[in-house]
Amino acid sequence: MSHSILANLPIGVFDSGIGGITVLKALATHFPHENFLFLGDTARLPYGSKSPETIRRYVLQNIEFLKTSGVKAIVVACNSASSVLRHDDQFGVPVFGVIEPGARAALAVTAPSEVIGVLGTRATISGKAYDNLIHGLRREQKVIGVECPLLVPLVEEGWEEDVITEAVVRKYVSGLQATTVILGCTHYPVLKELIQKVMGSGVRLIDSAEAVALQLDGAMKSQKILAGTTKDRKITLCVTDNAPHFQQVAARLLQPLKADSLQHI
Amino acid sequence: MSHSILANLPIGVFDSGIGGITVLKALATHFPHENFLFLGDTARLPYGSKSPETIRRYVLQNIEFLKTSGVKAIVVACNSASSVLRHDDQFGVPVFGVIEPGARAALAVTAPSEVIGVLGTRATISGKAYDNLIHGLRREQKVIGVECPLLVPLVEEGWEEDVITEAVVRKYVSGLQATTVILGCTHYPVLKELIQKVMGSGVRLIDSAEAVALQLDGAMKSQKILAGTTKDRKITLCVTDNAPHFQQVAARLLQPLKADSLQHI
Repeated sequence: MSHSILANLPIGVFDSGIGGITVLKALATHFPHENFLFLGDTARLPYGSKSPETIRRYVLQNIEFLKTSGVKAIVVACNSASSVLRHDDQFGVPVFGVIEPGARAALAVTAPSEVIGVLGTRATISGKAYDNLIHGLRREQKVIGVECPLLVPLVEEGWEEDVITEAVVRKYVSGLQATTVILGCTHYPVLKELIQKVMGSGVRLIDSAEAVALQLDGAMKSQKILAGTTKDRKITLCVTDNAPHFQQVAARLLQPLKADSLQHI
Repeated sequence: MSHSILANLPIGVFDSGIGGITVLKALATHFPHENFLFLGDTARLPYGSKSPETIRRYVLQNIEFLKTSGVKAIVVACNSASSVLRHDDQFGVPVFGVIEPGARAALAVTAPSEVIGVLGTRATISGKAYDNLIHGLRREQKVIGVECPLLVPLVEEGWEEDVITEAVVRKYVSGLQATTVILGCTHYPVLKELIQKVMGSGVRLIDSAEAVALQLDGAMKSQKILAGTTKDRKITLCVTDNAPHFQQVAARLLQPLKADSLQHI
């Protein structure tokens, strides 16, 4: 396919469900002329409590769906899903996870003598995806992971400003001594202010959505597949289950942007 | 198949994951000589946030799996899954949901002038499964449903005695004026004491696991398919995803009973 035809294709983004919408928002804000096709695998969410083998099976199916729909690049907007990507995976289309950009962004602002904390789901933390990537880049870096399985349902409940959520965050991070903390789940940017408040203003929070937007920008420029300057770009959402709750939460997380359509596939 | 061969087959029980273990425990305690085959559809859990169409597709697949494995009866140990069963469903094996026994048990202890509350997942409450069944039996009965999506992850986190869980329960039930409350999710019996404490000792709590055990007892007696008095009955667990977390939580919920084997299918 020629570069100009490729350039007009949308960027594919997928997640198990809602969390990836925070990444979609960061990307769609960074690339105001690009079309986006978002896939939420809501029939099988969440991925964070499942095994690597099962998650990888779902990830390969989602990539296949987006490729078949026609996209020029794919962002895996979910840490649990990104954690099962392999270095030697060949998909025939560029695929970007959120873990590597997040790990690099954390290293860039952290001295080797400091500690990087990672907040994530059970799958992301127990799979040590961030630890392995960071240690591949800086062997001596100390990394401490904290499993936070309740933060996703709290965000989906819309309780991000509730004292209960503050108590849960406090319980999870109370023992964590770190100068840099990676928000290792795409739901967590919604809790960024609260986590900052609980951990103190001296802690640097890393949101991998911003980091992946920069990486994608570099890759698309080098491959000359950036879109033109169309003013009517489209954001299309697809879900594998038509639960009405998705639409409400997605609209809330995407604000002030809006999706042009929502399809149940 | 003759009654005596049927009698030796296990009772099949399934749930999206962990919650059904509370029903399995109630059944295995009630029937100490019966073998049990439990299926936890952990690769696709939870069902409670998904649409009725998707849940029904999963339920039919689970019933087919248990039938093929050879069971004499099936208990759908999940309210969200029970809510998509239909009156005219024909499976070739008796299938028992938890909603009808729970609804009948609630009606039996509630005067028509009183109010029945139902705590459940988003799918169970918005689908109005309890309301419809109760109104079919007693048209004028007032029923109030409360969606409690955070209770499942709190139980799975093992925080059933935490002050945070008490605060969440209090937030959910604060506006609920009811004399009888159905624990409309198979995770909730774990929180029975806490819910009783928060709602007060005057409120009657209905645990449908006990109600379904009685219904199954009656049905098996009338069909003469109760097992003999073997002392070495087996409890077999099957899961669709081998997440290690399942085994720990299942063992905790099943105490003092123990599973004889756990298989990843």
